[in-house]
Amino acid sequence: MIIGIDIGGTSTKIGLVDGGKVIATTRIPTTGHTDEFAFADALAEAALQLTPHRRQGAMAGEPDNGQLTTAIGIGAPNANQLTGIIEMAPNLPWRNDVPLAKMVQERTGIRSVLGNDANAAALGEWRYGAGQDLNDLLLVTLGTGVGSGFIVNGQLMLGSHGNAGELGHSIIVMDGRQCTCGRKGCLEAYVSIRGLRRTYTELDGDPDVLKEAGVLCIAKAAEQGDAAALQTFRHAARWLGVGLANAVAVTGPERIVIFGGIARNGALLMAPLRERFQEYLLNIYHGRVDLVTSALPEDDAAILGAAALTTL
Amino acid sequence: MIIGIDIGGTSTKIGLVDGGKVIATTRIPTTGHTDEFAFADALAEAALQLTPHRRQGAMAGEPDNGQLTTAIGIGAPNANQLTGIIEMAPNLPWRNDVPLAKMVQERTGIRSVLGNDANAAALGEWRYGAGQDLNDLLLVTLGTGVGSGFIVNGQLMLGSHGNAGELGHSIIVMDGRQCTCGRKGCLEAYVSIRGLRRTYTELDGDPDVLKEAGVLCIAKAAEQGDAAALQTFRHAARWLGVGLANAVAVTGPERIVIFGGIARNGALLMAPLRERFQEYLLNIYHGRVDLVTSALPEDDAAILGAAALTTL
Repeated sequence: MIIGIDIGGTSTKIGLVDGGKVIATTRIPTTGHTDEFAFADALAEAALQLTPHRRQGAMAGEPDNGQLTTAIGIGAPNANQLTGIIEMAPNLPWRNDVPLAKMVQERTGIRSVLGNDANAAALGEWRYGAGQDLNDLLLVTLGTGVGSGFIVNGQLMLGSHGNAGELGHSIIVMDGRQCTCGRKGCLEAYVSIRGLRRTYTELDGDPDVLKEAGVLCIAKAAEQGDAAALQTFRHAARWLGVGLANAVAVTGPERIVIFGGIARNGALLMAPLRERFQEYLLNIYHGRVDLVTSALPEDDAAILGAAALTTL
Repeated sequence: MIIGIDIGGTSTKIGLVDGGKVIATTRIPTTGHTDEFAFADALAEAALQLTPHRRQGAMAGEPDNGQLTTAIGIGAPNANQLTGIIEMAPNLPWRNDVPLAKMVQERTGIRSVLGNDANAAALGEWRYGAGQDLNDLLLVTLGTGVGSGFIVNGQLMLGSHGNAGELGHSIIVMDGRQCTCGRKGCLEAYVSIRGLRRTYTELDGDPDVLKEAGVLCIAKAAEQGDAAALQTFRHAARWLGVGLANAVAVTGPERIVIFGGIARNGALLMAPLRERFQEYLLNIYHGRVDLVTSALPEDDAAILGAAALTTL
């Protein structure tokens, strides 16, 4: 059994994974701890409570419980798998580098691996979801940010410094929109939640719609025929179509999996995206690259992916 | 010993490679043959004449000459390494798919491998040139087209259909310049030889300068202070800077090697390119990605790269 941990901006999910299934979960808040050491204490405690490692009342003759959980995999934004460090993550509470893999391993006595959350999602989809048995796969997560993970030649692509797979920070419009990374024109500035909301505003959408957070509000408006909302998704499809076509030209995946709430709004994004993707795709790839949404339950995917980090 | 073959639009170079050195070369025209079968006949004959395989007058007791050349590697535009086929190459004489690996192997009796010319150049640079001992490398060839080859996790990245590494066909300007691939705004349309000449024209450069083919004419004009020529290289540096920064965001190489005559015009391209590349580079990569020109003699590089295809 493996513990998979998904560290999000507000909440951290912890799951026990057995045979590719999440069989138990718990969660702790990511924020509100004194410092990263207090967070690591709480995280280790929650993980140990969830695992058979400390199961109470084991009968004599049962196997050593310590061996039932063999590894802990942790997915987090801005996490570097080569170093085991969360590197100054803008959406997490800590302003410094946090060597969380080492901190959790010291506190639990269980081998712990840290990895980028988008890479974890790609691994989860590859091992357990829509990308099984493929040698070349691209997973794109659409949410607060735009993350991506690439399976290349049957391996997770890490890059020389462990930071590969930042498709969201490829520039699709030179001198375009300001991105949170400090540069201009990144894909993320156009197709993240914030990007879609900005597009809706630029299209003179109804300000009342945006009183609700996220993109579900724009999706609801689109379903009620709001022209600016419909146009917002069509524009997003165009920008994302170019970004995906460029990723295909470079890495040549057999399938692209789109993950995250924006994609789950079904046809609103995916229908125009499929059209634009084909339009921008290099001709040798026509008919050769599937474009699908995630096959995993959203709550489980991040935990399964984090668990899969330990199997690399 | 390995035979390396580089198939170009007009001329095909054949070299005998021993211990990472080209020790003998010959060439045949690529064009002017009746069909692809006649070309394969001529190519096999030239390869056999160059190799010790058919060396005349071997003494009794010498090793079987047949074993001295163990493999033939062939680099060509639009070649697919997974199938061994040149796929409808627009710059070669044949309008159909040509299974050249099989054709050469049948005619020579020597194991033959076909690969994309840019991938071959990347392999050559990785094994023998500026990319030795790196796990993650990007090579970009600037010429008639813009090719690229990626070493990822210590392996050549092929993609699921053998066509990966087409950075030249990533779109850097949406709805931009028409590209020979049928789409618009590809990097190749801006920084290939044709792209630079078009930029010079758009900048109202002196038409007399372009009476000479290639880009050396623009480089010469720039060296004499021609403002449009200098601006042409600065613009190229900007477009290529974005393309390289995007490739880094996705694949995370430790070094980028620029290959081809345009880059050899020294500071004209490389000086502004280094500036623009840093400007467009994602902050986590600052100071972490070398940008260099090829370390191999231009005549040898393609042959060494083709030979390296056989060692995959």
